[in-house]
Amino acid sequence: MSLDHAATKPHERLAAALAPEMDAVNTLIASRMASENAPRIPEVTAHLVDAGGKRLRPMLTLAAAKMCDYDGPFHVHLAATVEFIHTATLLHDDVVDESDQRRGRPTANLLWDNQSSVLVGDYLFARSFQLMVETGSLRVLDILANASATIAEGEVLQLTVAQNIATSEETYLKVVRGKTAALFSAATEVGGVIAGQEEARVRALYEYGDALGVSFQMVDDLLDYGGTTGEIGKNVGDDFRERKLSLPVIKAIAAGGDRDRPFWERTITNGDQQDGDLDKAIALMAKLGALEATRAEAVTYAEKAKDALKAMPEHELRDMLSDLADYVVARVS
Amino acid sequence: MSLDHAATKPHERLAAALAPEMDAVNTLIASRMASENAPRIPEVTAHLVDAGGKRLRPMLTLAAAKMCDYDGPFHVHLAATVEFIHTATLLHDDVVDESDQRRGRPTANLLWDNQSSVLVGDYLFARSFQLMVETGSLRVLDILANASATIAEGEVLQLTVAQNIATSEETYLKVVRGKTAALFSAATEVGGVIAGQEEARVRALYEYGDALGVSFQMVDDLLDYGGTTGEIGKNVGDDFRERKLSLPVIKAIAAGGDRDRPFWERTITNGDQQDGDLDKAIALMAKLGALEATRAEAVTYAEKAKDALKAMPEHELRDMLSDLADYVVARVS
Repeated sequence: MSLDHAATKPHERLAAALAPEMDAVNTLIASRMASENAPRIPEVTAHLVDAGGKRLRPMLTLAAAKMCDYDGPFHVHLAATVEFIHTATLLHDDVVDESDQRRGRPTANLLWDNQSSVLVGDYLFARSFQLMVETGSLRVLDILANASATIAEGEVLQLTVAQNIATSEETYLKVVRGKTAALFSAATEVGGVIAGQEEARVRALYEYGDALGVSFQMVDDLLDYGGTTGEIGKNVGDDFRERKLSLPVIKAIAAGGDRDRPFWERTITNGDQQDGDLDKAIALMAKLGALEATRAEAVTYAEKAKDALKAMPEHELRDMLSDLADYVVARVS
Repeated sequence: MSLDHAATKPHERLAAALAPEMDAVNTLIASRMASENAPRIPEVTAHLVDAGGKRLRPMLTLAAAKMCDYDGPFHVHLAATVEFIHTATLLHDDVVDESDQRRGRPTANLLWDNQSSVLVGDYLFARSFQLMVETGSLRVLDILANASATIAEGEVLQLTVAQNIATSEETYLKVVRGKTAALFSAATEVGGVIAGQEEARVRALYEYGDALGVSFQMVDDLLDYGGTTGEIGKNVGDDFRERKLSLPVIKAIAAGGDRDRPFWERTITNGDQQDGDLDKAIALMAKLGALEATRAEAVTYAEKAKDALKAMPEHELRDMLSDLADYVVARVS
C-alpha cells in the first residue's frame, strides 16, 4: 500500500476511480425515482438518497464489471438497481424497527408516515426491477430475484428470533446472509455476469461480496457496543435497546452461562432495561471476550473476501476492493 | 346465454373450465410460499391465501393464455406470479389502511404485526419475481415490472390525495388504473404474450383487463355506499370512514356545489364524522344522481371490456370473460 493509498480510504479511492460511472448512476437514479403522478415518491426518495451514504453497493457492481474490462452500458443500470433495492429495504426497515434517525437525519416514516415509507419502498423495488429487465440478461434477473427473496427472508427471520436469547450463531449467520450479505454478493456477482466472465470468476465475485457483507455486518454489530474497546460513543446501544440478538450478545450469552442468564433474560427477553444495563452488558462482553471474538470472526470473513479476489485478474480496482475488506475491519482494530 | 350459464356465476364457470390449471397454480403457490428459514412467512401467507378470495386474477391469466391455445407450462407460473403480487399488495394495503378485517377474517397486521405484513409482502414480491424469471420471457418481465411500478405509484397517489375534496375524476382514474386495473391488465396481457399472440390480440387482452379492472373498482366504490339503491348493508361505509375520494363522493361533491361543501369539508377534509353522517352522504349521493352516474360509468367500462374481446378468437373462455364483465356490473344493477 503506497503512502498515497494510505492517505485516503478505500471507498474514497473507489469513488474516485469510478467517478464517471458513478455520475451516470446518480443521473439514472435521479431520473428513475421521478414519478409524474405521485410527487410524494421523489420527495421521500430524495430525502434518503441525498442524505448520502457511501454508495458502497453500486460501487461494488461497477468495480466488479470494470475490473473484468466491461465497458458498459448495463453496469450502470445494475448499480442503480442495487442502490434502489438498498434504498427500498432501508425505507421498510425503518418502519419495521420504528426508527427515527437514519444517516443523521429524521427517517422518512417520521417526516411523512409509515404508509409513505411502505409504498415508496414498493415503488423503488418495482423501479429496480424495471432497470434490471432493461439489461436483457435473464441470469442477472435470476440472481437479483433470488437476492431479493433472501433479503426479505433474512429480515423476517430476524423479526421472529428477536428477543430470543437461545438464538444460535448459525441462525445469526442466516439472518446476516439475508439482511446484509445477499445484496453485497448479488452486487458483485452481477458485475461479473454482465461482463460475460467465466464461472470461476463469477463465483469468486459472489464469494467476495458474501464474505465482505458478513464481515461488514459483524463490525456494525460490534460498533453498536462501542467496538473492541467497549467505549461508549454516540449512537452506541441501539441494538441493546432494540434487544437484537447480534453476534456480541450471542457470544456473551454463551460464554456467561447460568451466572449471567438472569441479566440477559431481564434485559433482552423481557426488555426490562434500567440505567447502567448497557454499561454492564458491554463490560460483560469485554470480560468474556465476546467483543474480541466477534472482531476475530469479522477479520476471518474479511480474509475470505480478499482470498476470493485472487481468482480475479490484476487490476487497480481489484486492489481497492481488497483494501476495502481490510478497511471494513480496520474500523474496529 | 344458455339457461345452464345463467345458473352459475361467470367466475364459477371459469373456475370449472380452468380447474386442472388452477390446481397446478395452487400447488405452485403452496410450494413457493414456503420458507425453510422463516416459518412466519408461510403462516402469514397461508392466513391470507387460505381465506379464499375468488382467485380472479390468476384465472384471467389462465383464461387469456388458454383461449389462445397455449398449453403450458408457463401460464401456471404467471398465474401464480399475479396472485403473489396481489397477495403482497393486500398485506401492504392493510398496513397502510390500518385495516383489521380482510375476507371476513382478522388481518395479518392484527394477528401478527405490521412488521410481519411489510416483510412477508416483500418476500412475496420477490417470489413473484422469481416465478416470472422462470418463464424466460423478457417481454413478460417488462410488462409485470411496469405493472408493479404502476400499482405502487397508484397507491402513493391515493395516499397523497386522501381527504382532498378537490380530487378530480381524472386523478381518481389514475389511482384506479394503478391500484386495481394495472394488475388486471397485466394478468390478461401476459397470458397472450406467453401464448405468442400477434400484437392486436395482445393489445385487446390488455384493454379487456384494463377496462374490467376500472369497472370492478367503480362497482366496489359503489357497493361501499350500498350500491345504487343506497341501502345500508353490512360493511358499508368503510370508504366514508377512511375519507376516501371514491367516485361516488367525487361526483356528489361536484354536483352538490357550494350548498353541500360544508358537509364534505367537515366529514371528509376534517374527518369530523357524527352519527347520521353516512346516511346523509348516501342520501346526497342518491339525490344528486352520483350513485347512478357511477354505475353508468362502470357499465361503460364493462362494455369496453367486452368490445375488446371481439379481437379474440371464438372460444368458450372468451364468452366466459365477456359474461364476467357483465357480472361485475350486475352486482349493482
